Amino acid sequence: MATPVKVHGPPLSTAVSRVLACLIEKDVPFQLIPVNMAKGEHKSPDFLKIQPFGQVPAFQDEATSLFESRAICRYICEKYPEKGNKGLYGTNPLAKASIDQWVEAEGQSFNPPSSVLVFQLAFAPRMKLKQDPSLISQNEAKLEKVLDVYDKRLGESRFLAGDDFSLADLSHLPNAHYLVNAAERGELFTSKKNVERWWGEISSRDSWKKVVDMQKQAT
Amino acid sequence: MATPVKVHGPPLSTAVSRVLACLIEKDVPFQLIPVNMAKGEHKSPDFLKIQPFGQVPAFQDEATSLFESRAICRYICEKYPEKGNKGLYGTNPLAKASIDQWVEAEGQSFNPPSSVLVFQLAFAPRMKLKQDPSLISQNEAKLEKVLDVYDKRLGESRFLAGDDFSLADLSHLPNAHYLVNAAERGELFTSKKNVERWWGEISSRDSWKKVVDMQKQAT
Repeated sequence: MATPVKVHGPPLSTAVSRVLACLIEKDVPFQLIPVNMAKGEHKSPDFLKIQPFGQVPAFQDEATSLFESRAICRYICEKYPEKGNKGLYGTNPLAKASIDQWVEAEGQSFNPPSSVLVFQLAFAPRMKLKQDPSLISQNEAKLEKVLDVYDKRLGESRFLAGDDFSLADLSHLPNAHYLVNAAERGELFTSKKNVERWWGEISSRDSWKKVVDMQKQAT
Repeated sequence: MATPVKVHGPPLSTAVSRVLACLIEKDVPFQLIPVNMAKGEHKSPDFLKIQPFGQVPAFQDEATSLFESRAICRYICEKYPEKGNKGLYGTNPLAKASIDQWVEAEGQSFNPPSSVLVFQLAFAPRMKLKQDPSLISQNEAKLEKVLDVYDKRLGESRFLAGDDFSLADLSHLPNAHYLVNAAERGELFTSKKNVERWWGEISSRDSWKKVVDMQKQAT
């Protein structure tokens, strides 16, 4: 029987790979449906029915269609509480709230400068687009400040939301991976003792290694 | 007995007013603790203990401290399911997922251009800062595209996540309010039939009117 869970989008997309990492961590089988963004398939009328902003990923299961990677991750954790990593989104309301605030910190503070840097440093050269040096230095400075806060936090607890790996940490993997491995910005992470330890730990999880393999196969 | 719920921050902040609207909608009593940002109180060591990024709001109750307005709103809804507006964050996992994706759309698509425009058009003149016309026009164009998607969605359903007012709609109120009432950008909303109807409906809720009154008293 085919799995009812479908993720539409290329694994090289940071938002798609966030959802893939969550599904693998939760041990939920899924089908990855290619979306050829170079051909504009994400702007086709059929795709816009499931992702009205024309972005990736789009997610479908037997019950619903969803967009926005962080909302999809929360839904997967709520729908499959007993599968795979049971504590990924916490097992009580307080743990969940702590995870949620750091998922929001990722979305509101870490992601904006990171995604600019990933685009400018990793994707623009491949797409033969001109880089913007002042945009790069502005966003490096912003990210540096965010990671200073993380370093302090990670001096107090092993992971962002507490003692256990959670959606809060997972949500950082896609952009951090490109910054370290495709944008020559590993120093942003390794220059801070606690961030370095955390990055080493979260990036070596089996779930994330599987996502990186999927990305390699896609290139 | 004093209420255990404390919100630290000025009601004029969009993120603070998001949390206030949620608390009022949920009929949860709270204490608003002033934070004088002009004097840098949000960067003081004591404040950084509850909000490590030095931003507002910070939230406290008898069980926890939290930051990030959208995470705080989710927590309030989860903690007080039986109080006030019981459907604000949905009453089943599917409704919740639909609300969550539109809260994320607000945070990831609506908020970035809106908050730039609110700062440039409403706050910069008051702070005697120079406006950046190219930044303004870029972000108007971005917001216009986002609101086109909203207009289509709101042609299919009364509110963003379905038939009922939810956290998804509420989350848009703070920035939209300033765009319409302090930045002369009402046309962004009134030029689109469904967005205009939606904005009229959500902005006239008693909960939001109370927040606007708190903002007026603070100026």
